[in-house]
Amino acid sequence: MKIALAQINPIIGNFEYNFNKITEFANKAKSLGADIVAFPELAVSGYPPKDFLEKQAFINENLNTLTRLVESIKGIGVVCGYADINRIKGEKPLFNAAALFENGKIIHKAYKRLLPSYDVFDETRYFEEGKTSEAFLYKGEKIGLTICEDFWNDKSVISDRYYKNDPVADIADNGAKIIINISASPFEAKKNNFRASLISSTARNNGIDFIYVNQAGANDSLIFDGLSAVCDSRGNFCVMATEFKEELITYDTTPSQIYNPLTLNFAHENESILNALITGVRDYIIKSGFSKAVIGLSGGIDSALTAAIAVEALGARNVTGIFMPSLYTSKENYKDTRSLAENLNIKLEVIHIDKIYKKFLNGLFFVSNSDKPEITEQNIQARIRGTILMAYSNKTGALVLTTGNKSELAIGYCTLYGDMAGALAVIADVPKTTVYELSYIINKDYPKIPLNIIRKAPSAELAPLQKDEDELPPYKILDAVLKGFIEEDKDINSLVKQGFDKRLIEDIIKRISKNEYKRHQAPLGLKVTSKAFGYGRRYPIACDTEFNF
Amino acid sequence: MKIALAQINPIIGNFEYNFNKITEFANKAKSLGADIVAFPELAVSGYPPKDFLEKQAFINENLNTLTRLVESIKGIGVVCGYADINRIKGEKPLFNAAALFENGKIIHKAYKRLLPSYDVFDETRYFEEGKTSEAFLYKGEKIGLTICEDFWNDKSVISDRYYKNDPVADIADNGAKIIINISASPFEAKKNNFRASLISSTARNNGIDFIYVNQAGANDSLIFDGLSAVCDSRGNFCVMATEFKEELITYDTTPSQIYNPLTLNFAHENESILNALITGVRDYIIKSGFSKAVIGLSGGIDSALTAAIAVEALGARNVTGIFMPSLYTSKENYKDTRSLAENLNIKLEVIHIDKIYKKFLNGLFFVSNSDKPEITEQNIQARIRGTILMAYSNKTGALVLTTGNKSELAIGYCTLYGDMAGALAVIADVPKTTVYELSYIINKDYPKIPLNIIRKAPSAELAPLQKDEDELPPYKILDAVLKGFIEEDKDINSLVKQGFDKRLIEDIIKRISKNEYKRHQAPLGLKVTSKAFGYGRRYPIACDTEFNF
Repeated sequence: MKIALAQINPIIGNFEYNFNKITEFANKAKSLGADIVAFPELAVSGYPPKDFLEKQAFINENLNTLTRLVESIKGIGVVCGYADINRIKGEKPLFNAAALFENGKIIHKAYKRLLPSYDVFDETRYFEEGKTSEAFLYKGEKIGLTICEDFWNDKSVISDRYYKNDPVADIADNGAKIIINISASPFEAKKNNFRASLISSTARNNGIDFIYVNQAGANDSLIFDGLSAVCDSRGNFCVMATEFKEELITYDTTPSQIYNPLTLNFAHENESILNALITGVRDYIIKSGFSKAVIGLSGGIDSALTAAIAVEALGARNVTGIFMPSLYTSKENYKDTRSLAENLNIKLEVIHIDKIYKKFLNGLFFVSNSDKPEITEQNIQARIRGTILMAYSNKTGALVLTTGNKSELAIGYCTLYGDMAGALAVIADVPKTTVYELSYIINKDYPKIPLNIIRKAPSAELAPLQKDEDELPPYKILDAVLKGFIEEDKDINSLVKQGFDKRLIEDIIKRISKNEYKRHQAPLGLKVTSKAFGYGRRYPIACDTEFNF
Repeated sequence: MKIALAQINPIIGNFEYNFNKITEFANKAKSLGADIVAFPELAVSGYPPKDFLEKQAFINENLNTLTRLVESIKGIGVVCGYADINRIKGEKPLFNAAALFENGKIIHKAYKRLLPSYDVFDETRYFEEGKTSEAFLYKGEKIGLTICEDFWNDKSVISDRYYKNDPVADIADNGAKIIINISASPFEAKKNNFRASLISSTARNNGIDFIYVNQAGANDSLIFDGLSAVCDSRGNFCVMATEFKEELITYDTTPSQIYNPLTLNFAHENESILNALITGVRDYIIKSGFSKAVIGLSGGIDSALTAAIAVEALGARNVTGIFMPSLYTSKENYKDTRSLAENLNIKLEVIHIDKIYKKFLNGLFFVSNSDKPEITEQNIQARIRGTILMAYSNKTGALVLTTGNKSELAIGYCTLYGDMAGALAVIADVPKTTVYELSYIINKDYPKIPLNIIRKAPSAELAPLQKDEDELPPYKILDAVLKGFIEEDKDINSLVKQGFDKRLIEDIIKRISKNEYKRHQAPLGLKVTSKAFGYGRRYPIACDTEFNF
């Protein structure tokens, strides 16, 4: 049996687009001689549809689209994800479902049994757990269907979070030799390796060919890295699709078809992060119905990296940089910004903010006119810049990309409605130390980001001689503490044992906690680590921040 | 047996504060001769603790606090909510628990079985369901413990969302005559009546005295209205606590103690909404560690109502109004704003924005200097005001309260980083038509809000002769469609059947959808309806908005 894996990038709620996409890939698979083609989890609606799942009109349209697919695609078996209705009273009203259909008939349905309810996942909000998993005969082979989390349960690989039920084992015990898993598994750094060991171990431990089909592209914060693959029953990878992009690959189960075991050679972690961010920017802007971006360039590394990513995502002619110097802007930043814009080949506008800033200072009885701006006056400068960027956006239809990194977002070293103003926070989940590493990758072939931007000491330039290092712990230490506390849920004691100063840790944690209100109003950020700020990290705001949890 | 109901207002994560509060109320109950005192759901940590529940240090502190309470409160039985650890692998790591302890020993534990996972509730994210419910003997009475949602399952009252398990019935079948329910049930308009019928029906149908103890006060968006009560086995209310405030009430189960059935006489729906908003503002500001508020006054009804609410919540001396007129500001708004500030007895600052606005227009090559400001120029005006308010906040420590209502937030008739800038969106869940109704209540005794503010046609005053009614559907129609679509999940067809024009409905729904990105960056809003924007309403942003779900 020849199986095609259709790694597609659907648009949430655009059923017509998704119908056409599925039809196109099914036809392509047929032309390659495939017996069956599999699409990702909830491919009909796009993943994650969130509370659209509570709208009856959305569910109906999703079912109508499935019916249209069943009726129109002929001559090939199709496995497709959709939301099915659960009519049992006292249970959640939907199932996260997979259907296998062929020539106008649904042959088999499977319901997702392991529903993730952590981090960015809210599936128990909408779906009832499937109760059983079965193997069934299809074209002479005993096969079974599972959905995403259903296979994230191999105790030899996963130590902490696992489930009592084991759909893959149930299907294998039932005699299946091939198990198809349709997924929408978001990217995070290093997850590809972990996921690969899980796929391999699942195939080997259950003695099955494991067919893994993942979504590609990005939806809001989540970026789907694809990497759809087939692992044979010895746990060897036979075929694997590329990262982040749509692709159709095939696998033949006939024993005569011999696959040399693939040596997995994933891109370096930082290469993948960079590609994830490019994908995230592109899909956010395109799926929102726009094509252009505008970025406030400061001469610093964060905005330089953001601009470089935008150029990769949208093309240089769709990116504009706006440089907005003040009396605190150093000469080198004029020069560096011009070089950056030239290197990236983007349009650069220069708008001085001093006159506007002075009018604010003159007009507000309560602010200081002194040479040493306090927080209030620093924020005014940042907000003038935010207002200018948004005005440019309003006038031109270019979306503002914000440039803050994860380190400063964590401790609130950023201005609400100022540098935080925009549609998408491109590097909001990238720690400052990683910002440098990504910049070196951007500069791989030639220094697109001028080296002086990478080398000089970071500064917000909102006050004379201001330097990040005078107001913050060194980024190397800050980032290590943040990683321990936010991504690894370590408490103060374990961080102390790691060698960090206790008062420093407490101070950092207190700053994280006190700045929850800022992050609550931050634009969407692209998720590239195991714990990003935003939808997957939910903390109260108005509560005591003197306690360090 | 004399039972005390301790309707307290804990602070999330402030275990020392909550320990003292519980101790204080337990001692008060003891001095009233109570045999047992019951506190709300998760009283030890405050509700909802959200992802704090994933922090081991938080869980430990919660358990330590419970242990300290068990060891220190003597001479009275105490029922108290806390998070307990579940050690079974493959299950969620916590239970939402209630313990009854007395004189140093825990006598009984119950785990919440019905875990809400909808709207603002994410309990399946953290908790495993309790598996059983038992009656047990305490001081000669057969009693049982349940937690909040555990009783939201009476099929004679709830038609749509119910559960298979029925903890109350299990405990009653087990012989209990008294069932205590500890809750943290958020306020929404009209819920008090519904909840009362549910309590009454639960008590009557199960033949038990039902003791309902709810949290008071507000945490972020959620306002807890208290109204703790006892219903006897005939379904009659015997005692009931007040709305929103901390209170201790008692109930004696001795048959000789006769209670005349209470005639429930809840405050009018709008009175309750107003009290909810006052509670929400007060607790947000106090629990954040602040005491003062600042509000941009426009001369319009939204900012007038917001200021009046802030005065009720914080006292007039803690509220400042800033009036920020432009060349588009009408004379009557100067006058009305002064009257309002005088009536409310608050400080009023006047800051003209024209000079700053002109500098923006002169400094930005892409904006228009014409008399007819387009969206771009209108937004600049709003953002100057936002920047001024935030600067005042930075300088004085007064938190900015935003003044947008639900109708404009729904369709995006508001400016991100402009009038949307602030810490708390006081009336973000109040439709414009209700804003008028609340203003009449504020004016009950004398016209605090000048009548001209109520009577004149609403205008954003960002362009000459601008009026809401020229740019929006009439609020009466808009609000009715919004209620149907957002709160009642009606689709286009049912709204058409209700008598609204199809194109108008489609246009409104499209605007709701297109403005998801604005609401994503909105400040916390106080929830007073069954479906507020924010945490309980989760939609994708970058997706096709041409589809109307």
